[in-house]
Amino acid sequence: MPKSAAERNIKLVMEYDGSAYFGFQRQPRHRTIQAELEKALSQLFNRKLKIEAASGRTDSGTSAVGQVVNFKIKSDLPVEKIKNALNGILPEDIVITSLKNARADFHARYSAKGKTYEYTVLNRRERAPLKRTHAYHVNQALDVGLMKIAAKHFVGKHNFKSFCAADPAKPDREDTVRRISALKIIKKGDEIRFRVEADGFLYKMVRNIVGTLIEVGLGKRSPESIPALLKICDRTKAGKTAPAHGLVLVKVSY
Amino acid sequence: MPKSAAERNIKLVMEYDGSAYFGFQRQPRHRTIQAELEKALSQLFNRKLKIEAASGRTDSGTSAVGQVVNFKIKSDLPVEKIKNALNGILPEDIVITSLKNARADFHARYSAKGKTYEYTVLNRRERAPLKRTHAYHVNQALDVGLMKIAAKHFVGKHNFKSFCAADPAKPDREDTVRRISALKIIKKGDEIRFRVEADGFLYKMVRNIVGTLIEVGLGKRSPESIPALLKICDRTKAGKTAPAHGLVLVKVSY
Repeated sequence: MPKSAAERNIKLVMEYDGSAYFGFQRQPRHRTIQAELEKALSQLFNRKLKIEAASGRTDSGTSAVGQVVNFKIKSDLPVEKIKNALNGILPEDIVITSLKNARADFHARYSAKGKTYEYTVLNRRERAPLKRTHAYHVNQALDVGLMKIAAKHFVGKHNFKSFCAADPAKPDREDTVRRISALKIIKKGDEIRFRVEADGFLYKMVRNIVGTLIEVGLGKRSPESIPALLKICDRTKAGKTAPAHGLVLVKVSY
Repeated sequence: MPKSAAERNIKLVMEYDGSAYFGFQRQPRHRTIQAELEKALSQLFNRKLKIEAASGRTDSGTSAVGQVVNFKIKSDLPVEKIKNALNGILPEDIVITSLKNARADFHARYSAKGKTYEYTVLNRRERAPLKRTHAYHVNQALDVGLMKIAAKHFVGKHNFKSFCAADPAKPDREDTVRRISALKIIKKGDEIRFRVEADGFLYKMVRNIVGTLIEVGLGKRSPESIPALLKICDRTKAGKTAPAHGLVLVKVSY
């Protein structure tokens, strides 16, 4: 009888086009990234398998090029074979780009030290058919200079309660202090990209910050109004939530 | 009674995501860009209207950011209003970015002096969900240096019969001589972009050239084999046709 395989902790990095999914997290009666991944895992290993954790959920319609997940498995299959087999099973809008053995105590969520998100705005008069699926179309001219000044106020350790949606999955008294280490705004042609790095993000935090920066870019708010907005800790005072399809989870660092 | 409007010749520039269409040209029982545009024109002007010409057809699945079309209309409606109204009617994967009055003798096809196409290859091991719709995935490493040497042989005036598919819409003895003024290959991250400018293109010419260059990049053909391939005037000797979804009509010059 062969020796039974020891339990391994597998870390994987995945990319997905979130357009056709109700977000990352498994939900009854909805197509989600987690459900597709667990279906592929269960099919490959021929038993019902669940992941241990993902770095975090992504919203319905939001994409990723650097989502990190870990799962435990008793199997001798080499990592390269697991990756290729899973990619053969997964639908074309989900792919695993890296799959490795991790330390037993690695946890995709708890071990995360920071995350980077990118939000893309298409800023021109007419809509753009080729960019419509992954950029938010703003048809009035945005003042990038003003947005850059405003962006600086978000960098550092702040209470982001004004930029945090009530999270149905979490208790009301959640700690809403986070540290943004960088918020860069890059304009290239008619695209404006917002790149935000932080030690963690609250529910809809990037989309609320981007929505507020867009209002600054439209001249509806001043860059100087941001510090007071952070202090007031009132979600109703900040800008509209920018739509989910402009957002991509770029990287998780450990 | 109001004076009836004089006939105007309208030139428009359009962008479209070709994914959901059977190419530009109208066809019975198939969804095409031309049919959508003529439907919108007919709806706006409340009578059956057809365009006079487009700069050329694009293949099924191919997109455009600079397709040019002209149509004749008796109407006093200002160009800005025609554009906005058409964009309000057109589906989200088609848009008109510019619409102007043109000289009476302007013809989108016959007046064209040159065209630019771009073809995008995604060159990495795993597929990329966010780029899958508009880039051709080649999972073996391409040697960009070799492809650049090969590309130079295409530039200039040549008989491109080896790179031209039999065109069902055109007689067999079509002139197959064209002049390529530039063929640039640009690598950026895992994307390789082929940008081709010519005075005109034969049926599937860009896709056949790119397919042949890919075979050079894979080491299956040498860059030095290209001149003989051009001379032999035999389609069966050149590379495979690269798929339509990597191709975009970028610009038409007049």
